[in-house]
Amino acid sequence: MIKAVLFDTFGTIVDWRTSIANESEALANAQGVLNFDGDRFARVWRAGYQPGMAKVSSGERPWVSIDIIHRERLDDILPEFGLSMLDESTRDHLNSAWHRLSPWPDSIPGLKRLKSNYLISPLSNGSIVLLSTMAKNAGIPWDFIFSSDMHKAYKRNPAVYQNAIRLLDMVPSEIMMVAAHNDDLEAARNEGMRTAYINRPTEYGVDQKVDFAATSDWDIITETVEGVADALDCSKKL
Amino acid sequence: MIKAVLFDTFGTIVDWRTSIANESEALANAQGVLNFDGDRFARVWRAGYQPGMAKVSSGERPWVSIDIIHRERLDDILPEFGLSMLDESTRDHLNSAWHRLSPWPDSIPGLKRLKSNYLISPLSNGSIVLLSTMAKNAGIPWDFIFSSDMHKAYKRNPAVYQNAIRLLDMVPSEIMMVAAHNDDLEAARNEGMRTAYINRPTEYGVDQKVDFAATSDWDIITETVEGVADALDCSKKL
Repeated sequence: MIKAVLFDTFGTIVDWRTSIANESEALANAQGVLNFDGDRFARVWRAGYQPGMAKVSSGERPWVSIDIIHRERLDDILPEFGLSMLDESTRDHLNSAWHRLSPWPDSIPGLKRLKSNYLISPLSNGSIVLLSTMAKNAGIPWDFIFSSDMHKAYKRNPAVYQNAIRLLDMVPSEIMMVAAHNDDLEAARNEGMRTAYINRPTEYGVDQKVDFAATSDWDIITETVEGVADALDCSKKL
Repeated sequence: MIKAVLFDTFGTIVDWRTSIANESEALANAQGVLNFDGDRFARVWRAGYQPGMAKVSSGERPWVSIDIIHRERLDDILPEFGLSMLDESTRDHLNSAWHRLSPWPDSIPGLKRLKSNYLISPLSNGSIVLLSTMAKNAGIPWDFIFSSDMHKAYKRNPAVYQNAIRLLDMVPSEIMMVAAHNDDLEAARNEGMRTAYINRPTEYGVDQKVDFAATSDWDIITETVEGVADALDCSKKL
């Protein structure tokens, strides 16, 4: 029997690429930058995410929050996009665009249904302020929040999943991990959790290289959060 | 400028005494126990709370969650109340009455107003499942949850407040602690947090010995969560 359903957030619940593209494009336009490619800006910014976390996971660098990793990458890429004139407070504000990402259309309807039967939470690499501000902004109805800074570790470090299981004080098979990334589910299954794959083949746009389909026999394989609610037999009434 | 408002929960947000009295009385009646005093049962059960946590805080015993402390005390007191016949699953269910406590009448209206301007969370000795189930059950609109098992420490251990400040990545004075207990606010102020006292002189009923009034010049002194929202100038519109 499942009691809690945990969600990857970036890519699974929210469409970071479109959100960052729109916000950066509006800023570039306001700054009079010509030919700014917001979609490319979002993808190039995001390309610093895995390498930034890898330095923490390998022990090359002590714990830093995802907000710092985002900000360092932002500072690196601004010149390439004609935005090196941005002052500190404008950079801070642009960095917090990751706190204002928009959900995929199916996310909130699906989460509301799941919430009526289960405890629901992100199990995300975001910080607590990032995830709670995002939820408040977009109306995401989490019951509580597991953030990377609580674990001082990033997925797919097994410590993240183990810590969530310990905090919930549940048998691992009572917890379901939902993600659009096969390797996230692999790591969750290794700890005994149940798994649900949501296909998000457009997450990375032209940069997408993996996760066009489920690569294993996950407990649920679907296209939307509503599909997870359907499979777990949650009422359609909100 | 305040960015986050954290709340003690037992006694400050929820009226544990009436909730436990009602639930235990219904159970005793169903079991045919005569002359059962639910109010006294609640107070006697609660009297094991501070001593149970003290053993963890002193290091006499390794970390155990509040659910275990509640359960051990329950097993101790059942004979005195004529309930030693209760089986394991009935004891488990009664123990989880702490997950179903009812808010004071002003709590949810006040929290909804505060939520529109600030991140709001419990900073409680409850476990994550206790606090999130309670919130779901009662409609408490937390943005996220800080539970004692995240800190592996109980208030008033300074580590609890320090860990919350670190996780929020805020200056301590950007965070306000709200409690009906002067010593909780003292501990929060020691870490640099802002403080709000809500007077709940009936919390412990006939057992109440302290906290009939503010004992220091807390930033806010009021009677209700709505009073905190008033003082922080939150709109009355929900």
